[in-house]
Amino acid sequence: MGRLDSNFPDPCHFNPLDPEEFRKQAHEMVDFIADYYQKIETYPVLSQVKPGYLRTDLPENAPYLPEPLETILKDVQNQIIPGMTHWLSPNFFAFFPSTVSTAAFLGEMLCTCFNSVGFNWLASPASTELEMIVMDWLANMLKLPKSFMFQGTGGGIIQNTTSEAILVTLIAARDQALDVLGFDNMRKLVVYASDQTHSTFAKACKLAGISPRNIRSIPTTLDTAFSLSALHLRKAVEDDVAAGLFPLYLCVNVGTTSTTAVDSIGPLADVANEHGIWLHVDAAYAGSACICPEFRHHLDGIERVDSLSLSPHKWLLSFLDCCCLWVQKPSLVVKTLSTNPEYLRNEQSESESVVDFKDWQVGTGRRFKSLRLWLIFRSYGIVNIQNHIRSDVRMAKMFEGFVSSDPRFEIVVPREFGLVCFRLKPDENIGSDYTEMLNRKLLEWVNSTGRVYMTHTIVGGIYILRFAVGATLTEDRHVVAAWNLIKEGADALLF
Amino acid sequence: MGRLDSNFPDPCHFNPLDPEEFRKQAHEMVDFIADYYQKIETYPVLSQVKPGYLRTDLPENAPYLPEPLETILKDVQNQIIPGMTHWLSPNFFAFFPSTVSTAAFLGEMLCTCFNSVGFNWLASPASTELEMIVMDWLANMLKLPKSFMFQGTGGGIIQNTTSEAILVTLIAARDQALDVLGFDNMRKLVVYASDQTHSTFAKACKLAGISPRNIRSIPTTLDTAFSLSALHLRKAVEDDVAAGLFPLYLCVNVGTTSTTAVDSIGPLADVANEHGIWLHVDAAYAGSACICPEFRHHLDGIERVDSLSLSPHKWLLSFLDCCCLWVQKPSLVVKTLSTNPEYLRNEQSESESVVDFKDWQVGTGRRFKSLRLWLIFRSYGIVNIQNHIRSDVRMAKMFEGFVSSDPRFEIVVPREFGLVCFRLKPDENIGSDYTEMLNRKLLEWVNSTGRVYMTHTIVGGIYILRFAVGATLTEDRHVVAAWNLIKEGADALLF
Repeated sequence: MGRLDSNFPDPCHFNPLDPEEFRKQAHEMVDFIADYYQKIETYPVLSQVKPGYLRTDLPENAPYLPEPLETILKDVQNQIIPGMTHWLSPNFFAFFPSTVSTAAFLGEMLCTCFNSVGFNWLASPASTELEMIVMDWLANMLKLPKSFMFQGTGGGIIQNTTSEAILVTLIAARDQALDVLGFDNMRKLVVYASDQTHSTFAKACKLAGISPRNIRSIPTTLDTAFSLSALHLRKAVEDDVAAGLFPLYLCVNVGTTSTTAVDSIGPLADVANEHGIWLHVDAAYAGSACICPEFRHHLDGIERVDSLSLSPHKWLLSFLDCCCLWVQKPSLVVKTLSTNPEYLRNEQSESESVVDFKDWQVGTGRRFKSLRLWLIFRSYGIVNIQNHIRSDVRMAKMFEGFVSSDPRFEIVVPREFGLVCFRLKPDENIGSDYTEMLNRKLLEWVNSTGRVYMTHTIVGGIYILRFAVGATLTEDRHVVAAWNLIKEGADALLF
Repeated sequence: MGRLDSNFPDPCHFNPLDPEEFRKQAHEMVDFIADYYQKIETYPVLSQVKPGYLRTDLPENAPYLPEPLETILKDVQNQIIPGMTHWLSPNFFAFFPSTVSTAAFLGEMLCTCFNSVGFNWLASPASTELEMIVMDWLANMLKLPKSFMFQGTGGGIIQNTTSEAILVTLIAARDQALDVLGFDNMRKLVVYASDQTHSTFAKACKLAGISPRNIRSIPTTLDTAFSLSALHLRKAVEDDVAAGLFPLYLCVNVGTTSTTAVDSIGPLADVANEHGIWLHVDAAYAGSACICPEFRHHLDGIERVDSLSLSPHKWLLSFLDCCCLWVQKPSLVVKTLSTNPEYLRNEQSESESVVDFKDWQVGTGRRFKSLRLWLIFRSYGIVNIQNHIRSDVRMAKMFEGFVSSDPRFEIVVPREFGLVCFRLKPDENIGSDYTEMLNRKLLEWVNSTGRVYMTHTIVGGIYILRFAVGATLTEDRHVVAAWNLIKEGADALLF
């Protein structure tokens, strides 16, 4: 910053980005973080604090004068860390893991370093161009058809979350439809997904102004492992058409949140293609596995789909936020999302020789998001990234084996990837409420120890324990220890 | 990760987050970044590459085997940096600056380090609670009424961008209205803003399903410095009511993108309050200045507003993305955005004793975003943050003085903050087209030197050069050098 007028207090010479000060303090922070990773196993994985714990410790106002980094780091240790649920702990088996890596951390540091705002090409050519290249790289790793690539006729973008990926494609589909039907028919647009679809789908539909009464949640059942039936979809679509409504958008899952159920793309695409429905595949978690040939079949039929999203922050070591979205017809997205204010106009954008990613997303500003993926792919190579997926699946299989070999437990739905859905088996002599209560108690006890964090779900009326393997630091020994803890809980409960 | 089955190749022992490897490589990256900041002035501020430059340099596929960090860093230097428009260069005077600081960098490192996914309280109590506290701190710094604070009856959240802040509040307003009017009246909802409002407003309205024909862009003129007239607003609203439409949402600007025009909140709130219109204040850039008492009057009337957003990534040293949104009635936002899937349910959320930020935003996942602001406020103290604003404004005043003292130039709109809007003065004897052409040529030449980057706008038909002071590394000497360069260009043009 520059000098100050003499009438303002200037207690110290303030330089917010002195390179030598930056160097010194950033080195300090690196050591703090490396130490945290080294000690991470010693912290309770699920935070044990009570609501409001932090407000009692912190002042009501920001300080008027500066405080030294040492004081702040002490507070991180004593005030923040106790309130963390440690997602990177090797004992974290809740939700889906959020995977990370040194390479991605370095990529994020670089992204922060440049702090470029890549709303259009000119504002940071490298940011736009590297993202285009990296999205093509990942598309190639997934063996997507060229129609999803910039090398072909499509393209991809890094969104923050699946919610945005769905919102953006839904709006493209909506406005394409309304161009023909007229705006007043908005209330007649209908969207479809299975009842296993992430809640974010219905939320995106609400955001986009789809009538809440036109959001179809098609039931699934245990006997088909909770996958969406093309027959049921067809019935729903035909009923809507008969009622004078307009089928608009179908969200298909490759790996649902509750149980990693996989919808079969081909038969669902038959229905969607026939009725001109925009078909989106949400492969947030399991899509990453499809970089391994042995899992790629889950994407069979992808060439008949309009858009696909998957989140490397879940399983490709990238840290948050990173959701990759590919579309076959970027022009439909751009048509509805583009803006052209005078203050952003420039020769390159006008010539239409470049991609302006602001027209592919909700916001205007955007960070240099591709650096993380670029560093991951280059630092580890495809071989190690595939192996990391395989190792997680192998550990999940190992856990599945433990469960199967204990007669008190059962696997509820077949394991496909790194998630094991299991429970204490129901006893014929007692009701299902009691079984659910026992499983709830078991989960509560396991989590209360701070030694393992798992979560639950309910599907088809069954209360299920979810054991999601794949936190980056998890090794075989953590899975073994977790199983021993679960058994210990069961021993006490079923005594 | 765990072990691998023996049938897969494992060319090296792969550990994506070995703490000692992390420590070593992150230290290397810190030095790379500190060196970049030290050398930043030597790079052309506006990248001089041509579209497609990177694809010719990079392979078509990700590598199968790992590459060493040294190779990658060499490529960052030789392939990425030439394609960067250096937003942190002290010679960056384009758009608005995107300000940064060592403290925020450290906060971002910590946020990345934890990689917690704070969709609800339990998933990371510290993440939610620190955000609540920090948002109250900033609200206090801005002297917002308690009704915007968690300490009072409101609250705030960090969104990624202004677009999301507008979208979220617009949806809350929309669904509140439709609850009464019924969904079929969506097409009758009308939104209002001045023609100076950022293009993201119209985009958010389109996303939310507001009929494009119901987005009112109310004209402004130079004689009122492009601020929105309450009289014109009232006329537009009354016309719509008379036509059987429903006025829904008004977006008011404190500091427009083109010229930092300020709409006067009080008189506009009269109209909005009278007609039950949701009133949002977009203070993306200039809002930050209101932490200084001498600028606070721009928020006068804020107690009559429903929501306010401002972006610390613009002027509070925070790096991207960071847009703070406060609302007086969080329950309206939560009502429309909340989801409650089984797999996220937990005792604390059910008891409604906690805030679950997923219900305040578009996405589900979210990072530990408040760490950056917390580190900024604590490391620098309010005094230094105020001084940093003042120093930028003083430098802009200095530049304004240079312009005013040169008879070939003129200030087009009064300077309020750190942006100077100026141009080569029109000559009575020649047409306005020629003036515009001269100014375009001047801008083009200045930017082509790589020594300064400025941008332009057109308001009220006038082509204006924008000189935005405030890049974190900018000092008086850079402003002086930029002015000398501009004069040099003018000398050549007007010879």
